[in-house]
Amino acid sequence: MSTGTGDDSTADRFADDPAFAVHEGGKLSVVPTRSIDSIADLALTYTPGVARVSSAIAAEPELGRRFTWAPRVVAVVSDGSAVLGLGDIGPVASLPVMEGKACLFAEFGGLSAVPVVLATKDVDQIVETVAAIAPSFGGINLEDISAPRCFEIEARLRDRLDIPVMHDDQHGTAIVVLAALRNAVKVIGRQLADLRVVVAGAGAAGVACTKILLEAGIGDIAVADSQGILHAGRDGLTPIKQWLVDNTNRSGFAGTMVDALRGADVYLGLSGGSVPESAIAPMAENCIVFSLANPIPEVDPDMAAKYAAVVATGRSDLPNQINNVLAFPGIFRGAIDAGAHSITEAMKLAAAAAIADVVGDEVRADYIVPSPLDRRVAEAVAAAVAACARDEGIAT
Amino acid sequence: MSTGTGDDSTADRFADDPAFAVHEGGKLSVVPTRSIDSIADLALTYTPGVARVSSAIAAEPELGRRFTWAPRVVAVVSDGSAVLGLGDIGPVASLPVMEGKACLFAEFGGLSAVPVVLATKDVDQIVETVAAIAPSFGGINLEDISAPRCFEIEARLRDRLDIPVMHDDQHGTAIVVLAALRNAVKVIGRQLADLRVVVAGAGAAGVACTKILLEAGIGDIAVADSQGILHAGRDGLTPIKQWLVDNTNRSGFAGTMVDALRGADVYLGLSGGSVPESAIAPMAENCIVFSLANPIPEVDPDMAAKYAAVVATGRSDLPNQINNVLAFPGIFRGAIDAGAHSITEAMKLAAAAAIADVVGDEVRADYIVPSPLDRRVAEAVAAAVAACARDEGIAT
Repeated sequence: MSTGTGDDSTADRFADDPAFAVHEGGKLSVVPTRSIDSIADLALTYTPGVARVSSAIAAEPELGRRFTWAPRVVAVVSDGSAVLGLGDIGPVASLPVMEGKACLFAEFGGLSAVPVVLATKDVDQIVETVAAIAPSFGGINLEDISAPRCFEIEARLRDRLDIPVMHDDQHGTAIVVLAALRNAVKVIGRQLADLRVVVAGAGAAGVACTKILLEAGIGDIAVADSQGILHAGRDGLTPIKQWLVDNTNRSGFAGTMVDALRGADVYLGLSGGSVPESAIAPMAENCIVFSLANPIPEVDPDMAAKYAAVVATGRSDLPNQINNVLAFPGIFRGAIDAGAHSITEAMKLAAAAAIADVVGDEVRADYIVPSPLDRRVAEAVAAAVAACARDEGIAT
Repeated sequence: MSTGTGDDSTADRFADDPAFAVHEGGKLSVVPTRSIDSIADLALTYTPGVARVSSAIAAEPELGRRFTWAPRVVAVVSDGSAVLGLGDIGPVASLPVMEGKACLFAEFGGLSAVPVVLATKDVDQIVETVAAIAPSFGGINLEDISAPRCFEIEARLRDRLDIPVMHDDQHGTAIVVLAALRNAVKVIGRQLADLRVVVAGAGAAGVACTKILLEAGIGDIAVADSQGILHAGRDGLTPIKQWLVDNTNRSGFAGTMVDALRGADVYLGLSGGSVPESAIAPMAENCIVFSLANPIPEVDPDMAAKYAAVVATGRSDLPNQINNVLAFPGIFRGAIDAGAHSITEAMKLAAAAAIADVVGDEVRADYIVPSPLDRRVAEAVAAAVAACARDEGIAT
């Protein structure tokens, strides 16, 4: 196959970075589960045998769950508009990320996943496109779609489809953050309900983290966007920011994030940028700093450690890595195992509890979440999510 | 995973048919091409390493051909409206066929293929949906979409996309029919240009076969639909049938297919139904009967053998099986290897010649096409198609 490498007479300018070697030719293959070695195999896998299977499904559509691969395939859907820290890089440039996600679905969830990157950023077109291809899949993982479009796209697809739909940048992040915070409060001997939290960032992750923390019982959360704390005096807000105004900031902060950080128990950074030492130093004693921008955390981890009892980042080279891979493979696997038509709030809370419980009694300041490679996690999350779906009566 | 098998206390009603065992859980998996065994692997396959690859592609989009899987992935797209001989059975029931097709792309073409079945039969929606997901793929194989919608959908997507698009029910069939006919005329010592052909059926396959036979130099073709031979006196025709009227039927037949068969050299059955012995008996001496309806050919093969020098069917249990698997894996592989933006008429003719040439000097009445399992075929077709693309200057 042509690889588009161009002039072979010059040294390969990508040879020095092993990330490019890993991506050469892409990271996925679709393979048959059974080989075709004879005319008899061909006549069962394809015509004429396949016609009997298709006829049976046409007569009883629920047989599609048994005799097709669709129920165990997740579409990883992106328009490439908010990719990692890179921003709007478009569908093709986002593909390596979606392929990576599909690798993780296979490795940790035992599921097939197919990257579907879109040549449109129009909300209506994205919804129509995903709805049109939905019969091919057992779940839809929305990925790296910018706010606020991501909120409407997810909500409309959840309404319209009878398979699980989840925007992972929102809920995967939120679930792992809650899991980490559950264990962090154990380290400092506090309760979730007693904490005052400052969330920096009101994008996809900031909104979803705020919602799940509210559901988990944290009453006092102030959310900051680039203009400062969201409060009742702000105007011209998007619907989702207005929702945050109506449901957060019990303390009534109206200034900057730095104002709100004074005396706060938790800083949750989901904004990028840089937070100075002068903003962290006045936080409460035994405070918690989760600074999740990648690759450069908003708060320098070494500086944070001077003031905080527990520090977590998104980085793989530091302890307490907040990594979505702890959540999404098990969540989709559990929902699919249960035949659930959606992923509910209770299922997300159950997933967070399951992740935290894998750490269990070993919890300590530098071990509040399991390693992203810990194979027990997806299994525990899948079991908890499936059990929750059954408890809620949405399993089939 | 729940398999939807229902009450396990009763015997499985599908146990007697091995086709169902082959389809249990579906026939495909998506697998990573490299395993993730360490934090270092994770940091290269996913964040932060993947960000460097995505950034490079964002800066130079052509690097997507090298560092993503998309160029070697074919979408097998169907709305389930014309599936095998089963008709409009819908997307989910068509999935086993699309999965089977994907298995054959992998087995014979060394390509990944992803079934994409659609919850719409609207032409505009299908075109918009496929165009929206196209950046995810290196080729689009349209499949089992009913005529005449299939003609417009293919034409519009070919215009719009810069990757190969081919409706296999049209062109895959046509290419294999032409390959078989090239060898059949060798058996009877005739030339393609001298033949008078009757094509039964003016659907997707009938139209495409007629076109490729015209391109191959057969001047006298009469095409029959359910109302009889297409001729200048017919009115209310679809655009494609009007095209056939304008470009076929040099002999000016205006009656039934049976009228046209009297003295004809070739019967090409793509219509289903049943053709009586009284229609075949008056064909020319040393005639050729290709009767491709599955599983029951239009012309009984034993009866046909009383009159025809060469008989071919679509059946795997008889000699001379006209099977699209001889064409599509090699055609897409060749087009993708060459980086061709489309599949041209010349590339289709080259594919037909390559298939016929695999039989070579061994050609005889019961061996006019290779076995569908002959691994030489896809390789030969891919090489011929890629070479043709380069000759035409459409390779990249």
